Amino acid sequence: MIRSNIIGYETSAKGTEQVQSINPATKAPLAGDFVAATLEEVEAAATKAEQAWHSYRHTAGVAKATFLRAIADEIEALGDELVERVMQESGLPEGRVRGERGRTCNQLRLFAQVAEEGNWVEAKIETALPERTPPRVDLRNMLQSIGPVVVFGASNFPLAFSTAGGDTASALAAGCPVIVKAHPSHLGTNALIASAIQKAAKATNMPDGVFSALQEAGHTAGKALVQHPKVKAVAFTGSLRGGMAIHKAAHEREEPIPVFAEMGSVNPIFLLPEKIKQQSENLATQLASSVNLGAGQFCTNPGLLVVIEDEHTPTFIQQLGKAFEALTPATMLNEGIYKNYNRCKQSHLANELVQIEAKQANNDDWKAAPTLASVRAQDFIAHSNLQEEVFGPFSLIIKCQNKAELEAVANSLQGQLTATIMGEENELGDWTTLFKTLQIKAGRVIFNGVPTGVEVCHSMQHGGPFPATTDSRFTSVGTGAIRRFARPITFQNCLDALLPDALKASNPLGIWRLENGVFRR
Amino acid sequence: MIRSNIIGYETSAKGTEQVQSINPATKAPLAGDFVAATLEEVEAAATKAEQAWHSYRHTAGVAKATFLRAIADEIEALGDELVERVMQESGLPEGRVRGERGRTCNQLRLFAQVAEEGNWVEAKIETALPERTPPRVDLRNMLQSIGPVVVFGASNFPLAFSTAGGDTASALAAGCPVIVKAHPSHLGTNALIASAIQKAAKATNMPDGVFSALQEAGHTAGKALVQHPKVKAVAFTGSLRGGMAIHKAAHEREEPIPVFAEMGSVNPIFLLPEKIKQQSENLATQLASSVNLGAGQFCTNPGLLVVIEDEHTPTFIQQLGKAFEALTPATMLNEGIYKNYNRCKQSHLANELVQIEAKQANNDDWKAAPTLASVRAQDFIAHSNLQEEVFGPFSLIIKCQNKAELEAVANSLQGQLTATIMGEENELGDWTTLFKTLQIKAGRVIFNGVPTGVEVCHSMQHGGPFPATTDSRFTSVGTGAIRRFARPITFQNCLDALLPDALKASNPLGIWRLENGVFRR
Repeated sequence: MIRSNIIGYETSAKGTEQVQSINPATKAPLAGDFVAATLEEVEAAATKAEQAWHSYRHTAGVAKATFLRAIADEIEALGDELVERVMQESGLPEGRVRGERGRTCNQLRLFAQVAEEGNWVEAKIETALPERTPPRVDLRNMLQSIGPVVVFGASNFPLAFSTAGGDTASALAAGCPVIVKAHPSHLGTNALIASAIQKAAKATNMPDGVFSALQEAGHTAGKALVQHPKVKAVAFTGSLRGGMAIHKAAHEREEPIPVFAEMGSVNPIFLLPEKIKQQSENLATQLASSVNLGAGQFCTNPGLLVVIEDEHTPTFIQQLGKAFEALTPATMLNEGIYKNYNRCKQSHLANELVQIEAKQANNDDWKAAPTLASVRAQDFIAHSNLQEEVFGPFSLIIKCQNKAELEAVANSLQGQLTATIMGEENELGDWTTLFKTLQIKAGRVIFNGVPTGVEVCHSMQHGGPFPATTDSRFTSVGTGAIRRFARPITFQNCLDALLPDALKASNPLGIWRLENGVFRR
Repeated sequence: MIRSNIIGYETSAKGTEQVQSINPATKAPLAGDFVAATLEEVEAAATKAEQAWHSYRHTAGVAKATFLRAIADEIEALGDELVERVMQESGLPEGRVRGERGRTCNQLRLFAQVAEEGNWVEAKIETALPERTPPRVDLRNMLQSIGPVVVFGASNFPLAFSTAGGDTASALAAGCPVIVKAHPSHLGTNALIASAIQKAAKATNMPDGVFSALQEAGHTAGKALVQHPKVKAVAFTGSLRGGMAIHKAAHEREEPIPVFAEMGSVNPIFLLPEKIKQQSENLATQLASSVNLGAGQFCTNPGLLVVIEDEHTPTFIQQLGKAFEALTPATMLNEGIYKNYNRCKQSHLANELVQIEAKQANNDDWKAAPTLASVRAQDFIAHSNLQEEVFGPFSLIIKCQNKAELEAVANSLQGQLTATIMGEENELGDWTTLFKTLQIKAGRVIFNGVPTGVEVCHSMQHGGPFPATTDSRFTSVGTGAIRRFARPITFQNCLDALLPDALKASNPLGIWRLENGVFRR
């Protein structure tokens, strides 16, 4: 079975290099020979995307909504074939895959709603004041799409952060054509989803080129996409190394473009003394379960657990250790991630300042053995390499002598997607300095909950200071993600008939607008 | 008279290099020996800015508003001393300087209002849904300041885009301390304004370090500021070369930060046939006057005039030429800009495809001789160097054979701050393709007005696709400018008492918030 690249309405397999997906649970190649994209195909996808953009950028919100909902419908129509392929390519269990499919379709429908409602364009109007000295002209401002967007599929969410994931959904909602660079581990999943999108695009009369998906094992086509003059933004979810390579490639362009790389973090959890005293056992279970979710392959996986040593901490650490030992090792996404997990973990454990608190034996399968270790706060602060992410089920307990040392740990942290405080209500008031510090360090500050689990809604922020992302001013989850792919444009003294509907005097879309400084609808 | 750098509440003159401002009208050095900042002083300013940020980021909107208004008051209190110094350092006439001072103070007061009203934080709330499967946690999202911001003073707006200009006002309103790198041409102006800001900061109890201003003739301190780990954003208005140098310096940092470089453009004006037929004389006067505003040293100066050759164009070009010849040459801002103007202009005129339509004689003073030239559309399209900005009173007429050629000219354009259509109402409907193209090319599309004159309001967009700016998704003029210096943060399941006021259940600030998908106040 030969699987082609998808370029707009067409399929294309001009290359000679073939790639196969591997089933991480069996280490066996999966059916399907995927033809790697050539540079000629990159050019074709970019050219089609730009051509499509010239009409898609003016496509009405309701039409974009119909397209996005059709994609969700087509994905659901793939049925069990999709679920099975995702399981085979990712090693993820069925429940998780079905859940992620639901989330992916909900996400598409949420962005359909955003496009349809139209408030996202942030319309602002100042009407003319001809009598003023000097006279004020009529000025009307709205967001418009930025141009073709390249999306890199993520390894750890083969559906929700990949071909039809949040980046694609938000870019399409904004009016940007999308070119997906499929993750090489999920080529079959990508082929199914990309075909579903292609089908939806044709059925809803979207322009040829509004969506393309290219395959490859390496980085040649990906780099060419990032550097293509017709590409106006890039979205990526993955490792720090991968994200920074894309950031660097983008910088070699003549025209700077935004690169949204979500590169993960170690998501510190600060466990306050009273909480440990009151909830030791519960905390241990809750944390261990969060650490092993999806074989620990979540961007928001809690990699650091910060405690103050007192009479209750030894028991807590023991309970946590037992909970880690009771976890079921799960198959990791691919060989590279499995090897990287073990290498990074070993690098931490080889540090003589780090003590192993609980570990499970390695095995020949690509299963991640959950591991818990600890280090003294002063050693953690002195060795910044201990902040490096171990992508998988690994947590490092940081033992502080006192409050000041815990605050020093917080201050020493790099940027994070999330930071969490676990505390009883009566002690939280004593930790305002910590709370303030974490607001500087993270995109989301959580109280008494685990960081895994990212709600897709208006108020989510998934993104944080470097190295968590390349640009903390944007989110890659939630409706705010659309803002990445748009720029404001002002129309000055434009005839009402020529204005986009969002800015017409009669407000035919019924959207919220800031009119002469007042929000109106 | 020794003039020091301003570092928070202190003055500092540790360096040995002294710099003087030159009066461009007399070519004579002006009173005042300004001591160039050392790298030690850069470090001190950055350290103080970060320290100040830790409290200033939590400063209430009303307090920031009081600070911003105090700055405006202190600037006004400088009285004629400021006006005279600006005139001496810039060669700009008194009326313009007084007008720019008014604009600068209005801008500060507008951002005071923005900070005070508080809607700019874009508060979004999703309340908990404990009964849902899975339960939804309480999520509250708002914009918070990004950290210390470095502002480079602009040559062409010694007040409105410099020490207390739009970049500084918007950054301070967002809650970001500011370090200004003074423009070397306006060291006296900077010293006066920086002292006024320092005075206002002290009087309103802002933290020491909320504002600093450093001086130098070269680029050492400026580069060190851009690359300082404590600096989180940079704003610049100036040349393409200067902006790209800053962009490049920022890219050498470990942590990527946003660089907002507004680098100017040639601001094409498309003159439609019916308009020329009806309004030839008026157009000629209006355009010539716009081209020579501020000696042509406006970012939005109209450098390209695109016409279709017909029986009316020879008369129009003749009228325009006469209007150019009637302009009064004005002193340019400094020797570098004057020489650069002549060099770039000569480079265009030396092109054998370019024809001179009107010019004034050069003189020994640093006065800009307004010049009008023309070129055939096909030659313009074939020679992209003719798109390079001539910063000063210079316009190039592009003569098209027909509508298709005019549209091809539009398509060939680089990114612009503005693009203008001059057309009679009855012909505009025939030019929708042009209108759509210009929306891709520019940040502001203007009908029947000159691009010079940028209203400071909510709906202004001053910024456009590269090379007009490094990031078209933001504006450097108008209230939207604040969005450059803030990032969203989500609070999950946070006690109401610990939340920032903007997110508290009772909405004590009375701001607009998106609550469970509905805009409320």
